[in-house]
Amino acid sequence: MSSIPCPERLLLGPGPSNLSTEVREALASPMIGHLDPAFLALLDEVQAMLRTLFGSEEAWTLPLSATGSAGMETCLINLTEPGERVLIGQCGVFGGRMREIVERLGAQPIVIEAPMGESVPTQAMLDAIERERPHVVAFVHAETSTGVAQPVESIAHAARSQGALVVLDCVTSLAGMPVRFDEWQIDAAYSGTQKCLSCPPGLSPLAIGPRALERMRARKRPVQSWYLDLSLIGGYLSSKRVYHHTAPVSAIFALYAGLKRVIGEGLEKRFERHVDAHRALVSALTPLGFQFPVNDQERLPMLNAVVPPYDDEAEVRRRLLLEHDIEVGGGLGSLAGRIWRIGLMGENACRESVEKLVRALESFT
Amino acid sequence: MSSIPCPERLLLGPGPSNLSTEVREALASPMIGHLDPAFLALLDEVQAMLRTLFGSEEAWTLPLSATGSAGMETCLINLTEPGERVLIGQCGVFGGRMREIVERLGAQPIVIEAPMGESVPTQAMLDAIERERPHVVAFVHAETSTGVAQPVESIAHAARSQGALVVLDCVTSLAGMPVRFDEWQIDAAYSGTQKCLSCPPGLSPLAIGPRALERMRARKRPVQSWYLDLSLIGGYLSSKRVYHHTAPVSAIFALYAGLKRVIGEGLEKRFERHVDAHRALVSALTPLGFQFPVNDQERLPMLNAVVPPYDDEAEVRRRLLLEHDIEVGGGLGSLAGRIWRIGLMGENACRESVEKLVRALESFT
Repeated sequence: MSSIPCPERLLLGPGPSNLSTEVREALASPMIGHLDPAFLALLDEVQAMLRTLFGSEEAWTLPLSATGSAGMETCLINLTEPGERVLIGQCGVFGGRMREIVERLGAQPIVIEAPMGESVPTQAMLDAIERERPHVVAFVHAETSTGVAQPVESIAHAARSQGALVVLDCVTSLAGMPVRFDEWQIDAAYSGTQKCLSCPPGLSPLAIGPRALERMRARKRPVQSWYLDLSLIGGYLSSKRVYHHTAPVSAIFALYAGLKRVIGEGLEKRFERHVDAHRALVSALTPLGFQFPVNDQERLPMLNAVVPPYDDEAEVRRRLLLEHDIEVGGGLGSLAGRIWRIGLMGENACRESVEKLVRALESFT
Repeated sequence: MSSIPCPERLLLGPGPSNLSTEVREALASPMIGHLDPAFLALLDEVQAMLRTLFGSEEAWTLPLSATGSAGMETCLINLTEPGERVLIGQCGVFGGRMREIVERLGAQPIVIEAPMGESVPTQAMLDAIERERPHVVAFVHAETSTGVAQPVESIAHAARSQGALVVLDCVTSLAGMPVRFDEWQIDAAYSGTQKCLSCPPGLSPLAIGPRALERMRARKRPVQSWYLDLSLIGGYLSSKRVYHHTAPVSAIFALYAGLKRVIGEGLEKRFERHVDAHRALVSALTPLGFQFPVNDQERLPMLNAVVPPYDDEAEVRRRLLLEHDIEVGGGLGSLAGRIWRIGLMGENACRESVEKLVRALESFT
């Protein structure tokens, strides 16, 4: 049908994941205006479904018109002013990116680093909150570069009790494991569409709580970025529908269809499916000599950091891609050449994905 | 086919325009990884086709992962440092947006305003370049809020001869009227995908010339935005393919298909088609009492500012949309309630669009 010169792959890397037929059909829908009442009604529904996914009754949710990395930047630059202290829990590449964003906005990052392949120790974060009295505490729920899950609740509560705002990176966790915005007392969270939502990359779902909105309203100076200024974006999403930029209509159609699928399946069932696929992967890859370096309690189900048993891991990945149309991810940053990142996300979180991968790997021996 | 609860409309507003079947099919293509060699080859081809569209042999072109407004911000913040002077030619809403972005980055905007409904006087720009010695000169080629075309060449040459960089907004002009990046001596230009390219909104095609790249390399401090930092984005688009953010694959598929169509048609033929549709609109609407306030020499073919002959223009637009599935745009900013903006862009730049609109309008009398 399509003239796009790309083969069909099974995407078992760190994202994007494969699209459902429903999402592909939604993408191909006729274009409509970004101020059309029919589109605005659909956008309202997207925002409501995002509230369900983030686990929030009262957060303001929206699909930001850029990828997950822009979601990170948006949350940090809207809630922080130059000179303020931002405590960052870093257990991989994405915590490092937070630091860079905070530095660029002229604020002061304070970084607590996790030992490699582990989560950031809660006690170290609690001590730093007590000691540094940060304005904002930011960390990653599911670190895509290491496959580590970060415990959230105690850190968020401690931050709150000191008056700090809590920013949580849910790029890889949303729609694949529980995110409880209200219960955990998060103030701002962001995600991406191309991971457990199985939509195309290009949007960043955001949730912004009432304390964060209050902090934004009390800012002394405007946010440096015009495009990512949530107070301006809010004008379009409010009942006033003030034009800010042209919303990416097709991507929002895809997100609508993807969210319908998630809610149709049921969140708990979807989370279990991710855990089940992860267990199948462990059972299947361990006999082949793969190691799972992240300890069992901190392991993400949807993003599996594994040590492959090959002398030339890049060559095996290349053959998987070119001979079997299966993508798995390599290591990022200092882990390049040392680990694989096997994603079992959204549509791909199933035993069939695992079986196809194992069959391909076995064919090499 | 699709479950998207939106009707099919004829989009004759200021964008988005309707999608071709080819673009819709490209959107629905299977997902692929953003580091997959097949996708990277397609991306190379997109970049090459964008060079053709911008009229440049040597510019670095790319599809920025956000909408046209982010393209504006990206060009301005990458080429300007705090404290520098930016001369802005303003003939509508989008020149005003440039000013706001320049202020937020801590640079000094100097604004030359056009009389309402006219282009910025070239002589006033030349005088200001001479007097103010700006670091950057920025203006809009095709102002979507007023339907005015801005003469480019003399201003760009004068800016160059004084050592200023020239930033040109081509959001509405690209693929609908000639853009000659090299010939006019532009240093940075940005566009949007949802206007004369007839792709979905969500990407901003950029062209960055060698002098702009040099200025970026010589920056004293990093760009405030991490997401929009062209030196980081360049890492992914270079042969190194350094991961920066996940490219919006489906949107780039659509752009690929859209660019193929533009180049298949031929640029000159496409520009003529836009002029022809505009002439048909003038001939058809004048007898109905519409006025075209922009003078003939400065009128954009793809975005027609017209004064409608109705007491309640909003009601007529509402009926066009709901009874005839035709969208036309209202006025923006101070022109709200006073003009309509009729877009004849890309796929919609044809006599058939005009005929459908006229038939619907005639049915109301």
